[in-house]
Amino acid sequence: MSTARPFVFFSSSLDSPEAWRRALDQELGEFDFVVGPECADPAKVDVALVYSVPRGGLRRFENLKAVVSLSAGVNQFRRQDLPPFARLCRSVDRSLTQHMVVYARAAVLRYLRRFDHFERSSREALWRFEAPQRPQDMSVGVLGLGELGSAIALALGQDGFQVHGWSRSTRTLNGVIGHTGEAGLRALAGAVEIVLNVLPLNTQTRGILNRDLFSAMRDGSYLINMGRGAHLVEYDLLDALGTGKIAGATLDVASVEPLPSEHALWRQPSVLITPHVAGLTETRTAATAVAQNIRRAMSGAPLHNEVEVSSLEP
Amino acid sequence: MSTARPFVFFSSSLDSPEAWRRALDQELGEFDFVVGPECADPAKVDVALVYSVPRGGLRRFENLKAVVSLSAGVNQFRRQDLPPFARLCRSVDRSLTQHMVVYARAAVLRYLRRFDHFERSSREALWRFEAPQRPQDMSVGVLGLGELGSAIALALGQDGFQVHGWSRSTRTLNGVIGHTGEAGLRALAGAVEIVLNVLPLNTQTRGILNRDLFSAMRDGSYLINMGRGAHLVEYDLLDALGTGKIAGATLDVASVEPLPSEHALWRQPSVLITPHVAGLTETRTAATAVAQNIRRAMSGAPLHNEVEVSSLEP
Repeated sequence: MSTARPFVFFSSSLDSPEAWRRALDQELGEFDFVVGPECADPAKVDVALVYSVPRGGLRRFENLKAVVSLSAGVNQFRRQDLPPFARLCRSVDRSLTQHMVVYARAAVLRYLRRFDHFERSSREALWRFEAPQRPQDMSVGVLGLGELGSAIALALGQDGFQVHGWSRSTRTLNGVIGHTGEAGLRALAGAVEIVLNVLPLNTQTRGILNRDLFSAMRDGSYLINMGRGAHLVEYDLLDALGTGKIAGATLDVASVEPLPSEHALWRQPSVLITPHVAGLTETRTAATAVAQNIRRAMSGAPLHNEVEVSSLEP
Repeated sequence: MSTARPFVFFSSSLDSPEAWRRALDQELGEFDFVVGPECADPAKVDVALVYSVPRGGLRRFENLKAVVSLSAGVNQFRRQDLPPFARLCRSVDRSLTQHMVVYARAAVLRYLRRFDHFERSSREALWRFEAPQRPQDMSVGVLGLGELGSAIALALGQDGFQVHGWSRSTRTLNGVIGHTGEAGLRALAGAVEIVLNVLPLNTQTRGILNRDLFSAMRDGSYLINMGRGAHLVEYDLLDALGTGKIAGATLDVASVEPLPSEHALWRQPSVLITPHVAGLTETRTAATAVAQNIRRAMSGAPLHNEVEVSSLEP
């Protein structure tokens, strides 16, 4: 590992620069830390730590070694924002993964035990017995088997659910029935009661939750979107809810956030909207992983959770 | 074990006698099976398998060895219904325990991740971010540490929650902070965000979920009642919801079932009512345990899940 003193450029509309400066101080010791959007010495920047891309992008940093996203996604970046030689990575910390797993389990158990249904019947003063289902009687399909998706798939399997998974390249996970490719996506959709999305957003996955997928799903099945709003074609979902093809949806993300109050999704009684709360990167635990990637960038080692810049939208 | 041929009297308004006859046939081999309420040979009855007590009770069975409840509770029985010499047991099968554990986890995770809150804000078209809580940040108090309560307490502990438990006699469960007695009940109430009841219903526990308990609970905490409707003083709950002392309740049972549509509980937006679906005894799996207790009754061995007849209401 190199012992060069890292020069870090920070840009975020969401995260506290002071919290990050303190957390990295614990992890890195000596380093320089400049809070964007401006930077007096662009040639000195080694690593850009970015939630929101500053106006003008990051190409002005001519010696940039790596761009570390402050979120688990990288869809705030366009290919044109980054110098072509810089590497890019996501930040997946254990607290984020744990939050996402707990949210997924809460959302899936809610459908298993028909709490969505009983919430509505409670408001209508209706007492209608329905025999409870066991996790073994329900299948869940997880789209995306990266660090988050794998953790979710394994946790649901431990809870007793039958779990299917879909990923770009074939992945083997204990107890998870794996699918890949276009045909695999349709096979998964036809095999499960709940489709749960945690894919990364890129040119291949934008709009993947659309009428083609819904028509391959079972009648009366459920959708849970924990990925990004742009994965979902919202009007296709409204159609599928209208016909009853999809019985309900849990959406933690939306095409526009906050979702405007006039949006038709708010008027669907079978849609639960949560305000992008499924995951939360906690500075203190995330800083450990970020500091590791800063050190790796300084020494030229491969980054953890690296993303190919070529997979970004132009 | 005795090899005498058991004579079984069956009485239930809920369970199928034919399903039980078939299931016991698999387990017991030779036996007699009479479906109530009438019985031509009351002196021959060895075991009464009962969900609903027939008119006139069970004292006419002068040679009765045991009464096996077809449910996990025994509150359908009064002391005066049973011959004083007969023994009594509950039926707790693994499928019932599994159902109750899954319901408890679904109800607790729903509060942890504020889905109760987001259901209401979804209907009001409100996008209000709130940072997610981790299971480690939330305490749950389980009232009743019998077979069901222990399984629930241990499962919630495995999910990461801080778990307190309250039982008549001191019980030691791995990772569960134990309480007992009146003072212990108040200590538990003051230590947790969620009180979850799975106590048996008897003279000591009737009305235990009342204003005294609620006033000892934390401001803005939650109640989950998976026991019996008569554990809860419903008007005390309505008062505690009105003042905000209790922020919400999940009620699987009610004083009158089905709960009449004019009942004030239906008009509480923070109350989720589920129509007695938390547990379900499945004949096929339950018959194994019931057959064991029939054999034990025939041979004079102690029953599993035996209940003292003296604990029943007169």
